[in-house]
Amino acid sequence: MKKLAELLPGKISTAKEDLLCYGFDASGLEVAPSAVAWPQSTDDVVKILTFAHSNDVPVIPRGAGSGMTGGSVPSKGALVLSLEKMNRILEIDKDNMSVLVEPGVINGRLQRELERQKLFYPPDPASMNFCTIGGNVAENAGGPRAVKYGVTKDYVMGVEAVLPDGRVINTGVKTAKGVVGYDLTRLIVGSEGTLAVVTKVRLRVLPLPEDVITLLALFNDEVRAGEAVKHILAQGIIPRTLEFLDRETIHAIENYRPTGIPKDIEALLIIELDGHPQSITKEAEKVSGAIRKLQGEVTMAEDEAAREKIWNARRAISPALYHLKPTKINEDIVVPRSSIPEMLNILRRLSGETGITMVNFGHAGDGNIHVNIMVDKSNKEEYEKGLKLVKEIFRATLELGGTISGEHGVGLTKAAYINMEIPPAELDLMKKIKSVFDPKNILNPGKIFP
Amino acid sequence: MKKLAELLPGKISTAKEDLLCYGFDASGLEVAPSAVAWPQSTDDVVKILTFAHSNDVPVIPRGAGSGMTGGSVPSKGALVLSLEKMNRILEIDKDNMSVLVEPGVINGRLQRELERQKLFYPPDPASMNFCTIGGNVAENAGGPRAVKYGVTKDYVMGVEAVLPDGRVINTGVKTAKGVVGYDLTRLIVGSEGTLAVVTKVRLRVLPLPEDVITLLALFNDEVRAGEAVKHILAQGIIPRTLEFLDRETIHAIENYRPTGIPKDIEALLIIELDGHPQSITKEAEKVSGAIRKLQGEVTMAEDEAAREKIWNARRAISPALYHLKPTKINEDIVVPRSSIPEMLNILRRLSGETGITMVNFGHAGDGNIHVNIMVDKSNKEEYEKGLKLVKEIFRATLELGGTISGEHGVGLTKAAYINMEIPPAELDLMKKIKSVFDPKNILNPGKIFP
Repeated sequence: MKKLAELLPGKISTAKEDLLCYGFDASGLEVAPSAVAWPQSTDDVVKILTFAHSNDVPVIPRGAGSGMTGGSVPSKGALVLSLEKMNRILEIDKDNMSVLVEPGVINGRLQRELERQKLFYPPDPASMNFCTIGGNVAENAGGPRAVKYGVTKDYVMGVEAVLPDGRVINTGVKTAKGVVGYDLTRLIVGSEGTLAVVTKVRLRVLPLPEDVITLLALFNDEVRAGEAVKHILAQGIIPRTLEFLDRETIHAIENYRPTGIPKDIEALLIIELDGHPQSITKEAEKVSGAIRKLQGEVTMAEDEAAREKIWNARRAISPALYHLKPTKINEDIVVPRSSIPEMLNILRRLSGETGITMVNFGHAGDGNIHVNIMVDKSNKEEYEKGLKLVKEIFRATLELGGTISGEHGVGLTKAAYINMEIPPAELDLMKKIKSVFDPKNILNPGKIFP
Repeated sequence: MKKLAELLPGKISTAKEDLLCYGFDASGLEVAPSAVAWPQSTDDVVKILTFAHSNDVPVIPRGAGSGMTGGSVPSKGALVLSLEKMNRILEIDKDNMSVLVEPGVINGRLQRELERQKLFYPPDPASMNFCTIGGNVAENAGGPRAVKYGVTKDYVMGVEAVLPDGRVINTGVKTAKGVVGYDLTRLIVGSEGTLAVVTKVRLRVLPLPEDVITLLALFNDEVRAGEAVKHILAQGIIPRTLEFLDRETIHAIENYRPTGIPKDIEALLIIELDGHPQSITKEAEKVSGAIRKLQGEVTMAEDEAAREKIWNARRAISPALYHLKPTKINEDIVVPRSSIPEMLNILRRLSGETGITMVNFGHAGDGNIHVNIMVDKSNKEEYEKGLKLVKEIFRATLELGGTISGEHGVGLTKAAYINMEIPPAELDLMKKIKSVFDPKNILNPGKIFP
């Protein structure tokens, strides 16, 4: 490691405080690395990987560490490769509707820069104000707007990346289309930093929608809220967000930091429409009609402040939950959206049977439910009950035709469950692809595959 | 082969007329196979591949044979596996906005079935009335609507496929999101039948747009047509199609089957807007304004008949071209759309220098230009001049940051050029991925990689 530090003066640290700071992510897992590197260019990344490759040092690429499944938690003896200093927006090409960025660019910063130029980058993970584009690419991040606009993979046109042995590759095209050879870009997106270290990302951007309308719908009955979602979508309306919060989530927020939402309601929807002002006004009328027909109460945010108030409630969920119980086991299952009511029933039943509180909210439009199993890790019995519940929930999810992760990835926390979803032949192909990119298994080892 | 015929009675032929019929595709290349198989189920495909794998027989998967690059042209001794009889639409799931189809379903048939239910599958290759969804998946087919709606890969949620050794895999998810493991789906889409034989495809569908407006714009100056494209897009309008035809294309059509387009114009745009009636009416006004400002003449198709007339001209291009010269060398380069005028200038210059007619049309919105080099194959000198031109055109395309194929794939005809675009490290990864799926190299051998 000393040799590497000499190669990259000032960019490598083995100081205890750095090893502590870079030893964990939002999953709560923690393993101290042996060193931390802050490359500032592709060339630096090449040097680091070339060194690691010849010396068999595991390398853990890292963005902001906001991942939920331990994807950037080090293995023992590993070198953390933090991309945070490669944070330049290199090009905004309005003519061709694309941008070129370094991986350390914060998602929210990119959003703001683009909006100033009337451009729009849709993926908006809840952590958008601190998560990086590189991390988003590694995890194929989603967000509330995915129902209309898709997820990160739908916007990555190509990447520059460094292979574990230090070779630089360029994938994809600068053009809207391209079908020459296999799609290495899509293979790298969502590979959780196990195939290559992304050093540049070309993203497709859209024109900024002309206008946005935000609606808040309150229901005394969860089933009716589910029906409302169905009715809205059946009319051919695709809102840009369609979020739901269950009773427990609403209680948690209102007990933590009251926002004025009545506590006696059973479900809440946040619906956002974007596009041409006239057409979304018409859509908002249709949506409101569908909600009222199902005895829901609907209000429209009249201005930016009212809109912010609604979204602040949504963003208060995570901190609020920690006031319920010290530990949240946080899953992000997806079911076909028509099965959401059934899945919520199953979750409620499991909660009743085990006496463990579960808080559910998520993206109703695409069937993505954030299930939070609230326990106390120091209470061993309760914690293990919680972990057992995870398996039950995954089983039910898969039976309904769903997936065990819609946004968070597998990382460390879900690696033990991956074979519940991916059969042996497919898993075998994936592992062999990993070997093609990383025959020495030095890049983010132990992630995804158990 | 006799043994296989016994295993699948009535589904295998070695009759001369079948070998002839299944020996070529739209590329014009021709090699007779040793047999043709028409499986009717996944199980049949498993039997065929298991047999081929143990007997080292090359297998060439085939849809309708409308591919332009020889992707389904047999190699010597090969077995053609025609998926045309696996042509059922298995499920239209309106609640979850997806459909499940067999690979032999004709694209246009699916479009019509969906429209009846107010649903919409955007990818619309020019061959949509006979090409199959399986072929579309193999080639990652595009079409005029790609500028707004993307291409096939943007709609494939998952596939069932048979590996070359006969194992069945299922990739992707039935849900809108899913990030568990590597994206095998996207790897298979566009792999030109070299990795696995797709036996079922789950496609995402959209609500049918409420209304469509079709505009025809005529220009006396090609540069101004290019400027118009830029102005339309710069206003944040994304038409669902934005096609352009150059002077030579217009002449070819009007000499072949007159549609009433004045022959003295230099360029033509077909612009289609879709969405809410009010918002597209507004958009159409803006588009018309931009065209008139650049001295273009614009007319709006008042009804379905007028719209059809416009599109008939567009669809008459291919047959019309054969009246110019017996052989067309057909390329589908893509450049960043801001570089279209520059690319058209280069093409004109090359045509002038060589004396070879080139006819250019394509998808201006995404920079995809169909370059047709018109020659006579029986005139050896002229044909070789034409082939030399291809290389020049590819070089210029790549220099402008483009790609040598936007829709047609590499197949046989572009295999010799792939290393102009894909550098050695990336090509090495692709070949190793091919070996992971197909270690015996029995599936569509010789395609993509030279």
